[in-house]
Amino acid sequence: DVAELDLGRAARRGYPEAIYCEGKTSEQVRAIAERLRAAAADGTTSGAVLFTRASAEHAEAVLDVLPDAVHDETARLLAWPPDPPAPSGGLVAVFCAGTSDLPVAREAVLTARYLGRATELVVDVGVAGLHRILARRDLIDRARAIVVVAGMDGALPSVVAGLAASPVVAVPTSVGYGAAFGGLAPLLSMLNSCSPGIGVVNIDNGYGAGHLAAQIAAPWSPTAERA
Amino acid sequence: DVAELDLGRAARRGYPEAIYCEGKTSEQVRAIAERLRAAAADGTTSGAVLFTRASAEHAEAVLDVLPDAVHDETARLLAWPPDPPAPSGGLVAVFCAGTSDLPVAREAVLTARYLGRATELVVDVGVAGLHRILARRDLIDRARAIVVVAGMDGALPSVVAGLAASPVVAVPTSVGYGAAFGGLAPLLSMLNSCSPGIGVVNIDNGYGAGHLAAQIAAPWSPTAERA
Amino acid sequence: DVAELDLGRAARRGYPEAIYCEGKTSEQVRAIAERLRAAAADGTTSGAVLFTRASAEHAEAVLDVLPDAVHDETARLLAWPPDPPAPSGGLVAVFCAGTSDLPVAREAVLTARYLGRATELVVDVGVAGLHRILARRDLIDRARAIVVVAGMDGALPSVVAGLAASPVVAVPTSVGYGAAFGGLAPLLSMLNSCSPGIGVVNIDNGYGAGHLAAQIAAPWSPTAERA
Amino acid sequence: DVAELDLGRAARRGYPEAIYCEGKTSEQVRAIAERLRAAAADGTTSGAVLFTRASAEHAEAVLDVLPDAVHDETARLLAWPPDPPAPSGGLVAVFCAGTSDLPVAREAVLTARYLGRATELVVDVGVAGLHRILARRDLIDRARAIVVVAGMDGALPSVVAGLAASPVVAVPTSVGYGAAFGGLAPLLSMLNSCSPGIGVVNIDNGYGAGHLAAQIAAPWSPTAERA
Amino acid sequence: DVAELDLGRAARRGYPEAIYCEGKTSEQVRAIAERLRAAAADGTTSGAVLFTRASAEHAEAVLDVLPDAVHDETARLLAWPPDPPAPSGGLVAVFCAGTSDLPVAREAVLTARYLGRATELVVDVGVAGLHRILARRDLIDRARAIVVVAGMDGALPSVVAGLAASPVVAVPTSVGYGAAFGGLAPLLSMLNSCSPGIGVVNIDNGYGAGHLAAQIAAPWSPTAERA
Amino acid sequence: DVAELDLGRAARRGYPEAIYCEGKTSEQVRAIAERLRAAAADGTTSGAVLFTRASAEHAEAVLDVLPDAVHDETARLLAWPPDPPAPSGGLVAVFCAGTSDLPVAREAVLTARYLGRATELVVDVGVAGLHRILARRDLIDRARAIVVVAGMDGALPSVVAGLAASPVVAVPTSVGYGAAFGGLAPLLSMLNSCSPGIGVVNIDNGYGAGHLAAQIAAPWSPTAERA
Amino acid sequence: DVAELDLGRAARRGYPEAIYCEGKTSEQVRAIAERLRAAAADGTTSGAVLFTRASAEHAEAVLDVLPDAVHDETARLLAWPPDPPAPSGGLVAVFCAGTSDLPVAREAVLTARYLGRATELVVDVGVAGLHRILARRDLIDRARAIVVVAGMDGALPSVVAGLAASPVVAVPTSVGYGAAFGGLAPLLSMLNSCSPGIGVVNIDNGYGAGHLAAQIAAPWSPTAERA
Amino acid sequence: DVAELDLGRAARRGYPEAIYCEGKTSEQVRAIAERLRAAAADGTTSGAVLFTRASAEHAEAVLDVLPDAVHDETARLLAWPPDPPAPSGGLVAVFCAGTSDLPVAREAVLTARYLGRATELVVDVGVAGLHRILARRDLIDRARAIVVVAGMDGALPSVVAGLAASPVVAVPTSVGYGAAFGGLAPLLSMLNSCSPGIGVVNIDNGYGAGHLAAQIAAPWSPTAERA
Ligand SMILES: Nc1ncnc2c1ncn2[C@@H]1O[C@H](COP(=O)(O)O)[C@@H](O)[C@H]1O
Ligand SMILES: Nc1ncnc2c1ncn2[C@@H]1O[C@H](COP(=O)(O)O)[C@@H](O)[C@H]1O
Ligand SMILES: Nc1ncnc2c1ncn2[C@@H]1O[C@H](COP(=O)(O)O)[C@@H](O)[C@H]1O
Ligand SMILES: Nc1ncnc2c1ncn2[C@@H]1O[C@H](COP(=O)(O)O)[C@@H](O)[C@H]1O
Ligand SMILES: [Mg+2]
Ligand SMILES: [Mg+2]
Ligand SMILES: [Mg+2]
Ligand SMILES: [Mg+2]
Ligand SMILES: [Mg+2]
Ligand SMILES: [Mg+2]
Ligand SMILES: [Mg+2]
Ligand SMILES: [Mg+2]
Repeated sequence: DVAELDLGRAARRGYPEAIYCEGKTSEQVRAIAERLRAAAADGTTSGAVLFTRASAEHAEAVLDVLPDAVHDETARLLAWPPDPPAPSGGLVAVFCAGTSDLPVAREAVLTARYLGRATELVVDVGVAGLHRILARRDLIDRARAIVVVAGMDGALPSVVAGLAASPVVAVPTSVGYGAAFGGLAPLLSMLNSCSPGIGVVNIDNGYGAGHLAAQIAAPWSPTAERA
Repeated sequence: DVAELDLGRAARRGYPEAIYCEGKTSEQVRAIAERLRAAAADGTTSGAVLFTRASAEHAEAVLDVLPDAVHDETARLLAWPPDPPAPSGGLVAVFCAGTSDLPVAREAVLTARYLGRATELVVDVGVAGLHRILARRDLIDRARAIVVVAGMDGALPSVVAGLAASPVVAVPTSVGYGAAFGGLAPLLSMLNSCSPGIGVVNIDNGYGAGHLAAQIAAPWSPTAERA
Repeated sequence: DVAELDLGRAARRGYPEAIYCEGKTSEQVRAIAERLRAAAADGTTSGAVLFTRASAEHAEAVLDVLPDAVHDETARLLAWPPDPPAPSGGLVAVFCAGTSDLPVAREAVLTARYLGRATELVVDVGVAGLHRILARRDLIDRARAIVVVAGMDGALPSVVAGLAASPVVAVPTSVGYGAAFGGLAPLLSMLNSCSPGIGVVNIDNGYGAGHLAAQIAAPWSPTAERA
Repeated sequence: DVAELDLGRAARRGYPEAIYCEGKTSEQVRAIAERLRAAAADGTTSGAVLFTRASAEHAEAVLDVLPDAVHDETARLLAWPPDPPAPSGGLVAVFCAGTSDLPVAREAVLTARYLGRATELVVDVGVAGLHRILARRDLIDRARAIVVVAGMDGALPSVVAGLAASPVVAVPTSVGYGAAFGGLAPLLSMLNSCSPGIGVVNIDNGYGAGHLAAQIAAPWSPTAERA
Repeated sequence: DVAELDLGRAARRGYPEAIYCEGKTSEQVRAIAERLRAAAADGTTSGAVLFTRASAEHAEAVLDVLPDAVHDETARLLAWPPDPPAPSGGLVAVFCAGTSDLPVAREAVLTARYLGRATELVVDVGVAGLHRILARRDLIDRARAIVVVAGMDGALPSVVAGLAASPVVAVPTSVGYGAAFGGLAPLLSMLNSCSPGIGVVNIDNGYGAGHLAAQIAAPWSPTAERA
Repeated sequence: DVAELDLGRAARRGYPEAIYCEGKTSEQVRAIAERLRAAAADGTTSGAVLFTRASAEHAEAVLDVLPDAVHDETARLLAWPPDPPAPSGGLVAVFCAGTSDLPVAREAVLTARYLGRATELVVDVGVAGLHRILARRDLIDRARAIVVVAGMDGALPSVVAGLAASPVVAVPTSVGYGAAFGGLAPLLSMLNSCSPGIGVVNIDNGYGAGHLAAQIAAPWSPTAERA
Repeated sequence: DVAELDLGRAARRGYPEAIYCEGKTSEQVRAIAERLRAAAADGTTSGAVLFTRASAEHAEAVLDVLPDAVHDETARLLAWPPDPPAPSGGLVAVFCAGTSDLPVAREAVLTARYLGRATELVVDVGVAGLHRILARRDLIDRARAIVVVAGMDGALPSVVAGLAASPVVAVPTSVGYGAAFGGLAPLLSMLNSCSPGIGVVNIDNGYGAGHLAAQIAAPWSPTAERA
Repeated sequence: DVAELDLGRAARRGYPEAIYCEGKTSEQVRAIAERLRAAAADGTTSGAVLFTRASAEHAEAVLDVLPDAVHDETARLLAWPPDPPAPSGGLVAVFCAGTSDLPVAREAVLTARYLGRATELVVDVGVAGLHRILARRDLIDRARAIVVVAGMDGALPSVVAGLAASPVVAVPTSVGYGAAFGGLAPLLSMLNSCSPGIGVVNIDNGYGAGHLAAQIAAPWSPTAERA
């Protein structure tokens, strides 16, 4: 068989497995969608099903099986069932440095939302025009978790973390050219931030950032233990 | 003048500036210690003062000025005042894969503790003997934030995150040789984890990991806004 | 002339040369197929002929000359004659971490099988859901040689080798994106495994892994010398 | 506690844990030696204890606790008890390209020998004088597993594997300078060998190579299963 | 002979050759100092003589020959004659992100000053505490050329250039550890700045930055041509 | 909203924001063009609008909104309004090493011209035929800022800077193959130039080079301060 | 103008300039062909005109202007006039390791031949089947210059140089995948050869190899000086 | 035994083996020196014995055995017998860009001289002061082989080859810092030279350059074959 889905992940971790579509055929994705529909029906798994990095062909296969799934073409993501859960926990704020970083930022927003958090997105507030991020200090203060998405010099997370009480999840993007080396430049910049309080995820990994932010902002009662 | 301390950071972010000693002369470190003592005295700043990556000479300069500072030689860290604040928020669990990762793990533990969290440390539970980490599932479940420190293959964070509800802060170390390339191997491994829910910090950056974990596990009331 | 086939390899090493199709024109591949057919007919060489990394055009050229060849499109491999030899020696087990690693895993399986070994394949047992590989300890114990195929963090071979008496052949894949750097991340991870007993082959080199596993699991009588 | 030894590894895998000394203090190594002596005494573990990459100080600490341990200064390795087990299984042949590769080659030889194999070592047979390795075809044919150690161009494993029926374990070394980049050049060369049948270990990892070769050459009866 | 000094550079370019001491013996440096003294005496060359990256031994050799030379130990630089020329052209402002960047910043300051410019230096104004650089907007506005020195994330030049009319010369430093990779991280960050108007020099190259800034801020009359 | 244009940049820095088209959809580029047209109309911003790295589709969108914009297909750049400002300040000279570097060189020329400088362009004067650049010493002497564009070995800036009083802005290009590694070779060469007085911009970044050169050659009166 | 041809190179160096087509438009290539035809007609330059790395479109443009030019599609090279000069000097032997290296090998052969040398080509004699190159020792002995072309492990030049009195020009190719990193693996291997007597050219640079070999094998009379 | 000297190399290739001392103990070097003395005495080998990259301790061991050996401390080389052979063939010219490159340049000079060529050395003629190399065109014209040694930008070989009829052997050095990355910058620059006719050797490999140049400039009679 071609897939051994981790259906117990929702029970074990509190968040279900997502399907990474790249490198899978549309037939494989379709088969996986069918199994997930069945597992949701019989309660083997729970929570929103996400298909990430989906091409148009992958999306078609998913929509064949789950016709009411939401398909966000910018984020290359499909979510099912279409309505995200009612938000709990704290707010997840997502900032991106430039318009070209939008696909990754949206992937983060949608992931956090379908994993149960309220989200706010602000686009195109890079440090070349510093007044733009400085005008958002209120949102920085309200958020329980902050995602910052940036390509090129990757300088925005350092600036945001320097202003924030809450943890920053930094996402380098492959936006840029030449010595950006496919996102290596912002990746290294973020790993070496002079502002502490930043956790870095893989280049272009909006999914991972949204997942981590959702966990950080999750509801938690300090005296109780997790069941 | 040689330093313009960010004394307002405690008020702005909730966590004071730490002093990175590498590349500074002992005289510079001593002068900084004096200014911090004065700033603490007159209330310009608040919270624990940390000196990180301190050599023996740096430590001597600090202890001259702040004789009751705690000096952890393994972690190359000094903290003052010597008593950490009473712990608030959730538990920070720190796991390290091998004995050789201990200095970095202790730096994370001490940082989180002096920033106000309760901590637990478990050493030498790498995946080569998988039963060791599997025996700690209870601690994984109790922690509000988990730090995983590993060199060589950097595989432990993937295994821990695959079991955890809480966020994992992964710290690659320079433990290893040859194609570890000074920690590049575990760094890349952690960035590419097949388990979502991992934020990565710089190689050997126990300080950054402890700081981030302290923020994740900080007390937070979902309805209130930060003052 | 454009090729000087190593027809004596089967006699010299016990395993015949395989044809690496990438970078060859279809005409060149066709000419090579013809020569191999003739060499097999007159006994200049022996054993299964493998064409690796074959495009659709390459496959067509091979099938023109050797119409009964087996063509596995997933593995991009052709084998002739179509029936593998009767298996001898020990079992070769092949595990892969994700569905997207399947093409490489199948290339390993088919290579080992056509070189004379029994094989078993298990797909999608990555460490993000650790119970999946732990459920296969019986197969790990029965195998004389184990191939582990993984992209992204490349953590699976460390876990498998930590459980196994038999040698592990680790194959990093180019599955992943960003800081996976085309397979560099799992490659470095595997080279730096904290579990000894792992030999690494090139990124995506299912052929090399299958070949090496076939040699490890080959029949051998400790007192006799090779003829 | 600073170490959680994997004492069950001998029972689980057939080969006990080795102690990687780099990054450990002499006190930690001494404490580990004491625990291993106790574990050997009460049968919690079995087999030879190896201390790898040991400095003079590490060695002193080990010899304090285990005075009859064998210390090979070239290989930076200590073994205890001093007598290796009676050899079983097939022969492990170790070739190294230059005299400067000798420390790594000896580490491989001693590891394989203490894990139970007969070994033969041949030094300084690099491809610059090809007649030297061609004169050893008999040993290549007799070995059940072959370790090839080389720095600089890393060309020797390709030549040996092209002549051998048995698997080759290739060990790149940091011997060389400039564009050898600490062993990167031979590492890449070995991973890209045009001769199939090579498993690569980390740069300078004689320990890993000896371990893997010992497993390849281990006694095995095709019909029986491992207990 | 071991050196063929470019004595005509002052006449040709307007700025004399400086001596890079690394990799030269003290005897070679002494001989060069003697020749420069003679060339200055007979008018073969003109302007300040700079010895860069000088060790204590190099400095001693220079001071033997040119006892009134100025030796800045922090910058590892010697200048002779000791008095810089009267400043002409515009102001060169030098900012550095942290105290540890001070040696490189001083090398830039002294180079620009001995090449004829007025300079101002501001230390420890990194983006982690953004108010520090924002408080210097007046100096940013007054400068004809701005040098920004930063290690770690290299984010400061992007912020400064985003505020400045004048050109920014960015100097990455090797301050940092781990994934800073000896200054690669800030180097890439600066090359990929989202703020245009930045020219980057080599890692730790305070000399080159000071030289370039001196040229940018040089006096120039738009209608006249250079003689 | 998808863009938060930095309309104040012209007032703040003296040079307006340019639009980086890569990674933006044509719809986004069209919307941005509309906003810029409105901002120019109501005086919110001033100066030439540049669209860089524009595909044919991007260009079409821009020309729909700003039909009189100039579109340079070689440089992949659009400028509006079509007439550059009357040149002020000093001359910007642009040299490129080979014909294949022309697109980057033209991007630099047009950027400097639309930011207000006079420009001269010389093509195909690489060091393989040294007489070609030596014949241009007059232009080197007349220029207030010099841009040198080169791929492959990136040797031309070192030669030009060795002859020039004025600052050199060096632009590595991705022209070349193999070990040029997409422009890494000339980038490193330029950063390590043995001739001081070079500021390096990103690979293929003609825009950044033209911008920096325009700032260097800007009119400036040493006694006045910028308003 | 878009090109400033180095027409004096034939007189200056003895070998005329070749045209690198990549990155040039067909129109530019056509214009260059016209100028070269004119320069050959009026004696401004001499010798064979080579167009390298020519696409089908480039070739068409050249053939429009120089209809009797020879076009080798494998080598992507055009030469004019069609007949190479009568060979002088010593023999250039070209060996390539695999069939996939043939395009690069042919580029070297044609370049050397059009620059005036006799050439012999041998294909597919990689070290995996060592007898193949050993069977060519006679050609190795007869050649005044030897070109060795290899991808993957790049081991063949070390073996050939170890047998040869004459210089070896080594050409790494981009043949291979994964950790070959586009030819980096054989490049590093060749630079680190344990056999002295090897000069390395860029990855896939058959032109440079043929040119260098032609110079090495050029006629030379030890007592006379070059005119 | 620890070394299997390639004593037949002089007969086979015309040039004897050299001993690479790095990574060898002084005892090993002494033993090798004894064997070489014996082999020279009984005619098993012939020609000059070279010990390369020798530390002071290595040198002492050699001089103990071969007291009349010449020891060049700058080049870290020993040669025996002390008198080089009478020069034959053409002239080898060695240029180096800076004084700091002298050790590598001298290693090349001595190697070529002891292998039988006349040599001339010119130091400190880098492209920052172009007139220096242009003043040596006569030597460039007289040489049968040219070695160019350069660190930093590695630009000198491109300039020299652009002027030369004879082949250029380019040697990158580790002179420089920061983004020179231990010689990577000049290495890449030289591999990507815009001037054809350059063969590159390893970083700092003066030995290899001298050897290759000696072979290029070796006497050769076009009609005779090598015995
Ligand atoms: N997919 C593959 N990956 C790596 N090596 C291969 C592959 N297929 C064939 N080879 C080996 O590559 C060598 C060179 O191939 P060729 O270019 O066909 O001469 C052959 O002799 C095979 O042993
Ligand atoms: N866009 C994504 N980026 C990184 N990881 C992902 C992404 N989407 C899914 N994953 C994770 O990747 C793991 C491996 O994928 P699979 O190939 O399905 O085994 C899944 O279990 C997911 O948790
Ligand atoms: N020289 C060595 N190279 C690579 N791995 C080693 C070496 N020596 C021991 N190991 C392995 O490294 C693992 C981690 O070591 P430790 O830090 O001691 O827990 C051990 O379990 C050993 O199996
Ligand atoms: N300085 C050097 N750099 C590169 N190769 C060398 C050098 N000195 C000697 N060699 C070559 O390196 C080979 C391997 O050296 P060894 O380790 O002594 O067997 C010798 O056969 C020499 O041809
Ligand atoms: Mg923007
Ligand atoms: Mg351990
Ligand atoms: Mg899966
Ligand atoms: Mg040797
Ligand atoms: Mg500071
Ligand atoms: Mg040209
Ligand atoms: Mg072949
Ligand atoms: Mg000089």
